[in-house]
Amino acid sequence: MKIVLVGEAANHEQRLRPLLDRPHKIVALPRDAAGSAEHDAVIESDDVVVTLRWTREAGSPPFRLLHVPGAGLDGIDLPSLAAATMVANVFEHEVPIAEYVLARLLEWEIRACAMRAAFDPVRWPALYRDRVPHGEFGGRALGLVGYGRIGRAIAARAAAFGVAVTAVDDHAESDSAATVLPTTRLGQLLAGSDYLVLACPLTTETSGLIDAPALRAMPDHAVLVNIARAQIIEETALFAALRDGVIGGAILDVWYHYPASATDNAPPAAYPFWELPNVWCTPHSGAWTEQLPARRYAVIADNINRLAAGRPLRNVVPTPHRTSR
Amino acid sequence: MKIVLVGEAANHEQRLRPLLDRPHKIVALPRDAAGSAEHDAVIESDDVVVTLRWTREAGSPPFRLLHVPGAGLDGIDLPSLAAATMVANVFEHEVPIAEYVLARLLEWEIRACAMRAAFDPVRWPALYRDRVPHGEFGGRALGLVGYGRIGRAIAARAAAFGVAVTAVDDHAESDSAATVLPTTRLGQLLAGSDYLVLACPLTTETSGLIDAPALRAMPDHAVLVNIARAQIIEETALFAALRDGVIGGAILDVWYHYPASATDNAPPAAYPFWELPNVWCTPHSGAWTEQLPARRYAVIADNINRLAAGRPLRNVVPTPHRTSR
Repeated sequence: MKIVLVGEAANHEQRLRPLLDRPHKIVALPRDAAGSAEHDAVIESDDVVVTLRWTREAGSPPFRLLHVPGAGLDGIDLPSLAAATMVANVFEHEVPIAEYVLARLLEWEIRACAMRAAFDPVRWPALYRDRVPHGEFGGRALGLVGYGRIGRAIAARAAAFGVAVTAVDDHAESDSAATVLPTTRLGQLLAGSDYLVLACPLTTETSGLIDAPALRAMPDHAVLVNIARAQIIEETALFAALRDGVIGGAILDVWYHYPASATDNAPPAAYPFWELPNVWCTPHSGAWTEQLPARRYAVIADNINRLAAGRPLRNVVPTPHRTSR
Repeated sequence: MKIVLVGEAANHEQRLRPLLDRPHKIVALPRDAAGSAEHDAVIESDDVVVTLRWTREAGSPPFRLLHVPGAGLDGIDLPSLAAATMVANVFEHEVPIAEYVLARLLEWEIRACAMRAAFDPVRWPALYRDRVPHGEFGGRALGLVGYGRIGRAIAARAAAFGVAVTAVDDHAESDSAATVLPTTRLGQLLAGSDYLVLACPLTTETSGLIDAPALRAMPDHAVLVNIARAQIIEETALFAALRDGVIGGAILDVWYHYPASATDNAPPAAYPFWELPNVWCTPHSGAWTEQLPARRYAVIADNINRLAAGRPLRNVVPTPHRTSR
């Protein structure tokens, strides 16, 4: 059994190695190996492949475990995998994502970055006397589309501020932090949320879920936060709604287009969201923390140790060949 | 009984009036009336005076109640008041102050404002690929000097992020959000805090409490947050510590000098804190929210109604003439 690290995962070899119970061979493959059979001869039936993306038009070679070093499975071509291949993913990003969402929503109300930028000792008396009151986060209503790990992490923190949290999710129940409604009540959530945070996976059901009618159903001061996948919101409808004041603003950390290769210079969206003053754009950085890889590779190392010892794995994902956990 | 609104308080006459059970006469006095006997003939023994500042070198005329429309009593010359005058203050600012502190500390770790400023569709592929990991708030240690209303509001919110909160306070006890130590353990708090937030009143005991030895006792990455009163930290020592990297940074919302008159153009501090990249300056705006005056004047109106009805007041402050609540 060896461990094959594809693309960005290869950066974490030194992080992974000391956590392994046995000295497995570790090999690195380039980013292109995720989408090409060119390197498949390296991969043996007993191997663990760690990769964020995997596509094989003509089917994959058999190997033991595909470990995604992230949560999203939308980069993995599950039907292409051999029947013998298990898939596991990792989470841990719910902490930094919840912190990012709370930080941006608090800042949406307070605007402390602008206050800091305007601070001026010469204009101090006027600056102090003419302070413009800002908003409070507490007392607002926060809606969550999806009440999984990320939704729950956001809700627990928002509730501590006295924010009323409601979520729609067909597979979760209300708890002390949030009231959970079935997804058939999405319209009620849209109409009643000061902030709406998308915290669901991208699936055929959620693709384009937030369309022009959904945006019109939101209050005109509402802030839409997307830390999930861009395609959950119809791009053309979102730009029009933000430009025309149909909603109050958006906090966007996920994008419609990511660089597909080293020569792909296409912009992140077809419309200039970044030119609108009510849109706060960041480059998919919400979960990108110094602490996250250590937590994630600790889970991956634990799963490799479990596999080597014949023990059950954590975070096994149902695949077309393996539907139960 | 009439109500005398001094300075800024006069802006809130329309807010106060509909909350009063009886149609009391309300008069406005200029800001200068806080520090001068010139208008004292207007004030009768049955009156309520609402003012943030009050000084009388030759003693005050007798009146019923001095209501501070804020929490801090350092602007009130308590010994100058007549024995018949009660003093009450208002809080409610613990909510926006806690939100400000949490917003700034989250931003200290995440730096989302800088990410937004750097967002560029032309540089998108490099921007995405070369993202620099940021820090996490969860898992850090937050120290509080003072565990009153503000300290507790900060602790409750920080604890929801998985931040370990410790406070020093001789008049409070540990709860689910924070471990409270006696003030004799300040040295331990200084040494063990990633973030140190001052949440105590300015008194003879706390003036200059954070001096050069205290700053040297803090970790060199520590962030000092002052939302209390500037004078709790020795100004010269603070500037040197920030300039020389003795501590990691500071978030300063309170200042060493406020405009004393319309012609006072002195800067907020004797040293250019605002020129240091590791200091985030804001103009005493942390609690300055749209929602705060409504909450505060509701308390003031309630106290006026209680006074008129002969019922006990809320938030009565001990004075030299009245030491018990």
